[in-house]
Order: sequence, then structure tokens, then C-alpha cells
Amino acid sequence: MFNINNNILNVDSPPIDYFNNLLSKNSNPNYNPISFGHGIPRFTPIDYFDFNNNPIFEPSSYKYSEIRGHVKIRQFISNKLNLKLNVKADLDNFIITSGANSALFKALFLKLEQGDEVIVPSPVYFNHIMAIQMIGAITVEIDSIEKNGFQLNIPGIINQINDKTKVIILNSPNNPTGAIYDINDIKHLSEICLKKNITIILDYTYEDYIYGTDYNPLQIFNSFENLIIVGSFSKTFGITGLRIGYICADPHLIDNLCKIQDTISICAPVISQNILLELIQSESKAINKNKLSAEFSRNKLIELIKTIPQLEWITTKGAFYAFLKLPKEMNSWEFTRDLIVNKSVLVLPGTIFGETWKSYIRIAYGAVDSDEIDEGIHRIKNYLEETT
Amino acid sequence: MFNINNNILNVDSPPIDYFNNLLSKNSNPNYNPISFGHGIPRFTPIDYFDFNNNPIFEPSSYKYSEIRGHVKIRQFISNKLNLKLNVKADLDNFIITSGANSALFKALFLKLEQGDEVIVPSPVYFNHIMAIQMIGAITVEIDSIEKNGFQLNIPGIINQINDKTKVIILNSPNNPTGAIYDINDIKHLSEICLKKNITIILDYTYEDYIYGTDYNPLQIFNSFENLIIVGSFSKTFGITGLRIGYICADPHLIDNLCKIQDTISICAPVISQNILLELIQSESKAINKNKLSAEFSRNKLIELIKTIPQLEWITTKGAFYAFLKLPKEMNSWEFTRDLIVNKSVLVLPGTIFGETWKSYIRIAYGAVDSDEIDEGIHRIKNYLEETT
Repeated sequence: MFNINNNILNVDSPPIDYFNNLLSKNSNPNYNPISFGHGIPRFTPIDYFDFNNNPIFEPSSYKYSEIRGHVKIRQFISNKLNLKLNVKADLDNFIITSGANSALFKALFLKLEQGDEVIVPSPVYFNHIMAIQMIGAITVEIDSIEKNGFQLNIPGIINQINDKTKVIILNSPNNPTGAIYDINDIKHLSEICLKKNITIILDYTYEDYIYGTDYNPLQIFNSFENLIIVGSFSKTFGITGLRIGYICADPHLIDNLCKIQDTISICAPVISQNILLELIQSESKAINKNKLSAEFSRNKLIELIKTIPQLEWITTKGAFYAFLKLPKEMNSWEFTRDLIVNKSVLVLPGTIFGETWKSYIRIAYGAVDSDEIDEGIHRIKNYLEETT
Repeated sequence: MFNINNNILNVDSPPIDYFNNLLSKNSNPNYNPISFGHGIPRFTPIDYFDFNNNPIFEPSSYKYSEIRGHVKIRQFISNKLNLKLNVKADLDNFIITSGANSALFKALFLKLEQGDEVIVPSPVYFNHIMAIQMIGAITVEIDSIEKNGFQLNIPGIINQINDKTKVIILNSPNNPTGAIYDINDIKHLSEICLKKNITIILDYTYEDYIYGTDYNPLQIFNSFENLIIVGSFSKTFGITGLRIGYICADPHLIDNLCKIQDTISICAPVISQNILLELIQSESKAINKNKLSAEFSRNKLIELIKTIPQLEWITTKGAFYAFLKLPKEMNSWEFTRDLIVNKSVLVLPGTIFGETWKSYIRIAYGAVDSDEIDEGIHRIKNYLEETT
């Protein structure tokens, strides 16, 4: 009866609301719910900022901004990226979007024709796959190498490049593994992409969550010829609900992205832009607070997971995700559901990050405190002891 | 060098920022700038609301909401529409989006395959055309009948319906003409659409701006089988900068729209949802204040335009737009540019609302005060006297 575009009909339903609802409605009433589900940091501006100027009382918050976004936000992010880039990013290299998902969708929508191929290292953030499928392009998933900490399978990727390959998406630091891809691997890929006119879309959402090492994947790019950066202010400032991110690309692409932005969004929410303009002065405070908390949780998690023989974790150095292997034959979707129902703990099943990963789970440790880590992992341990 | 999807490359650049920039940079320094450009109402919440609960201090404002949006907002808009609809709209008939543009794009993206045809009465809001083109569908523009106040050309529309026709977009009250389409015409079209499995997308953004008459286009629909409503909270509450709107449709379509929403936006900005939740209690205050101001401007405009023999205006009863005919051969793009440069007054050229309308201009009168109407129209009158 209803005409629906087939590409969209064939996309799986988004998983997070499903599991959130399961946690709030079907969890075990004997336990308080603990969520390792959503990828959010722990602290919001309320925890690190005093609003002297309150954007809620500014008339401009209720009116449109330029399509590209407020010039001062573009200035801020251009200054930040210019510390890392080998090519200068000016104001006209940027458009401020309604979050990094919006940025990624718009970048793919700009580049891809029906039937084009996009290479994505797997496991992969499910919204990337959904975006590619909806647009009518083809996803080519290349499994990353788990034993190397989910590093890129470079020969595997190169082997799949053909005339239809238009984009390679690199999400580093990675969701869901936390991997930070080796600089030399990215360099190698970038050189190939430059020759073959393939664009690397670098999803740089977790740029400020890197532990115990210096890491700068931007250093290897000398031009925007084969590079689009999509990023977010969400994780850095603890503001996922404001929906604000960016695209950094060649000005010609930005001009064309303005057409898409105007049509889909007109502009990023202006109240959010105005709040971000206030927060900018406290960037390092925001990062320190959230990153320290994530790092603390990560260290704790490393110790706790060691005590669970049924779980395997190749630790990684970025983002705030642990991607864990369940005992061999275990179905992660069922495990996730049963863990909620029995122990009121939410993790996400590996299945949603690619078919290969059906016996894995993702633990998001960005938002939890010390007690929740202790208690949540303890319940997972007990559950595995009871059922395996 | 850069691969860009051809559909997007072929879309015209968005016009409003271009003319806004011209007004701020190239206007005549002897005159203060007056803008009849952007379609925004005059008053923001700062003018009609006291924030006792300030959402900027609520942690939830900085975190994701459900993909569908806050249940209380869905409740509010469902109650509002149920007063007008002949079919009951429940919570699962709604998704809250980042504005009405976002709603329209997502609805079209859901429905259309490449090469599908969409009928749009012309003149037409340019973002509708841009959305259709980007998706790779085909726009079929049917000129409305000016002498009837830009009413639908029903025989013209019916004549263009064929197997490829998937959607008819009706924007009533209309941007850019202000027309409210005759209920019987919509009913006639709706019956045909039901038989031929064509969806009517009703863009209902200006629902609260109707002058001197009762008007309810929702009354003629008895099911969601052939109806998608897209709407906005922007014009009603004076909150264009919050980017918040909605889609009302069959639950099966909403379920599939959740896939698109998750991929493009995750959710509507939550700070905006929380602000709107506060404003809801003052809806009638917001509407009265903004609608009274628009109505006052409209009445003034009717009198003033009568004194300008070079301009023709078939007055209409909705929104806050006047669509005026320039002297016959005049190019509206050049007129708009020269009016900015000489008199610092911004209108929008008819060209951007469809090729037929190249000798028309749109005056947005929602945001201006009495003095601006007087002074702005006075300058337009002088300019026409000087140049024709």
C-alpha cells in the first residue's frame, strides 16, 4: 500500500532506542539499570561551566544563522584543526552541521551516485552503513585485524578498490573498537586514494579521546584534494543533545554542501551555536574533565575484564569503547537482550557493527562512574558464570 | 577533479544568504537596511515568555533524546492536529524533526525513487524543488492561477498525473504567495490521489497565519493512507533558530522515517525540544503576538501597495508573504540586486520560486514593524518611479 524507497525499506531499524526501551521497560526490577549503551561522555556543561551570558535570553538564538554557521565557530574549529593539519584550513573550508551524523550523511550524499562503492573498515558505526545504503550506494566492509587491535587491513582494502570506489570512510579513533589507525597505514591509503581520485572521509568525532600516546592522523594530508573531515563538538564538550558538528573540506565542496544543508537543515540549531560560542573558552576544562573520567573508567575496565575468562578484549587507545569477544558461539543479540532482562545492564551487540562480529559486544564507558563500572562489570561476570 | 553527485551539482545555490550578504555589504550607506527577505515572524520567546525553568541548566538538554522526539512534544502536536483532523493521530503518528525543511526532505527521501515524479504547484518554495532534485526525482511544476489568488490549477495538475507520479506537495498557507488552497480543490485532489496511490505531502508550516477566515485543510482527510503532514514550530512560536518541526504520517512510515532520522540527525536538538516544552503553555500568547503583528503589517501593505501603480498584488489570506508583479518586462533578479544597492531594501526575486515568475518579487512582512513597512515600501515606490 505505501510506496517506500527500497533502499530505505531494506535498512535495519536503528538499534539504540530498541535496547534503551528494553532497559527501561523489561529490566530486572531487583537491579538498578546500568547503561553501557549510548556513546556519550559523562559531564555536560552544567558540570564545568557557569553561564554568565545565557544564550536563552539572546534574540539571535531564535533566528536563522548563515547556512555555513556562525563565523566564530568556524574560526574556532579552523584554529583547532590548523594545529594538526599540513594544509591550511580557512573559514571557507568549513560548514557547521547538526552533529557529526548529519555531517557524514551530507558528505556522502554530496559525493555518491547510485551504485558507487564505499569501503568501510569493519566493525563499523552502524549509522555509516545506514547512510550509504539509503543513498543507494554499496558498502564494501573490510574486516579490521583484531589481533593488531582492530587495525586496518590494508591489503584487504586495496584489493577491493575498483573504478566504482568513490569513498573510504576512516573513523579514527574508532567507534566501536576504540582503535586509532596507524598513521603509516592512513598515509599509504591516502597516497593510493590521491592517485585513484578516491576521497577519504575521516570521521574525527573522538579526536579528543586518545590515551597514553600522541596521535595526529591529520598530519599526513597535504591538501583537501582527497580529504573530507567530519567531526563533532558533542564528545569534546559533552553536548550530544545540542546536535552540532562540522565538515572540513575543499571550498568547492563546501559551496555544494551549502545546497544540501539549506535543503535539509537551513542551518545548525542557532541556540546550540550560541551555547557552543560560550563554551569555547572552557574547551580544555571540558576535555580534561570528560577525558580523565573516561581514562579512569578505561583503566578500571582493563583490570576488571582480566578477571572474566569468558571475555576477550584487545585493548585500544581511543574513544570510550571496549569491543569484547564473547565465548565462541554466543549470539550477541540474545546475550544483550538476556543481560538486560536478567541483570539490568545494557551493552550493544556486535551484530549491529557488522555481520562478522555477531559474538562481540560493545561497552561504552564514557558516561559511567566508578561504581557503575564496578557493579555493571560484576553483573556481566556473574551472568557469564551462570550461563556458560 | 572532485566527484560530486550530478543531481546536487545541478541544483542552484541557495539564494537567501547571497542576498543577505548583498544587503549587509553592498547596500546604500545613506539608508538603513530594511529586510523583507527571510520568512520569519517578528517576536521571539524573549518577547512573550519568562523562563522560570531554564533548559540551559537541565542536564537532559545536553543528551540524546529518543529518535522520535520527546513524548510530550508529540503529545502536544497530536492534540493540536486532532482538533482539525478527521482521523485520530496518536503518538506513533509523529516524529519530531530539525525543522520543517528537515521534515520535508526526510518525507521525500523516504518515498521517492530515482526518476519518480513530484507535482508541485508553482510558485513554489525553492527548498522543495532543491530537495526533489537532489534525491534524483523529477519536479513537475504546475503554475497556479494568479487571477484566483494563486489557487491550484486542478485540471493542469490532473493532466500531469501518470504512473511515475508519487507525490503532490501542497504548501498551504503558501510560501511565497500566501494563498490558502480551496478546501474543495484539495478534496478533489485527495480523492484522485487515493485512487492512484499518490501521497499528498501537506506542508503546514504557516498553519497559524490565516487572516479573516476559518481554514482547515486537514478536515478532508479520513486516513493517513495518502497523507503526510510536515510542519514547524518555528513560525508559531517565533523560534526559527531552534530548528524544530514534525512529520505526521502513518506509523509504518514513521517507523521507516526513524531510520532516516537516526542516520541524518539522531534526534532533533534536545535543548530546542526542552525549550519548546516550556513554551507550549504560552502557545496562544505567541500566536496572538506574532499573528497580530503580521496582520497589522499585511493591512498596511494592502493600503501602501495600492499607491504604487507599477506593482500588482492579488492579495491572499495566509502566511506572511506578498507575491507582487513587477512592470511587465522587468527582471526580478536584477531588480532585487539594484534595490539593495540603491535603496538598501531586500525583497526576494520571483525567479527563485519558479521560472514563470521572473517578473515577480516576494515581500516577507512577518518580521518588520510599522515603520519598516512604511519606510521600506516608500523606498520601493521611489525606486520604481525613478527607474520605470
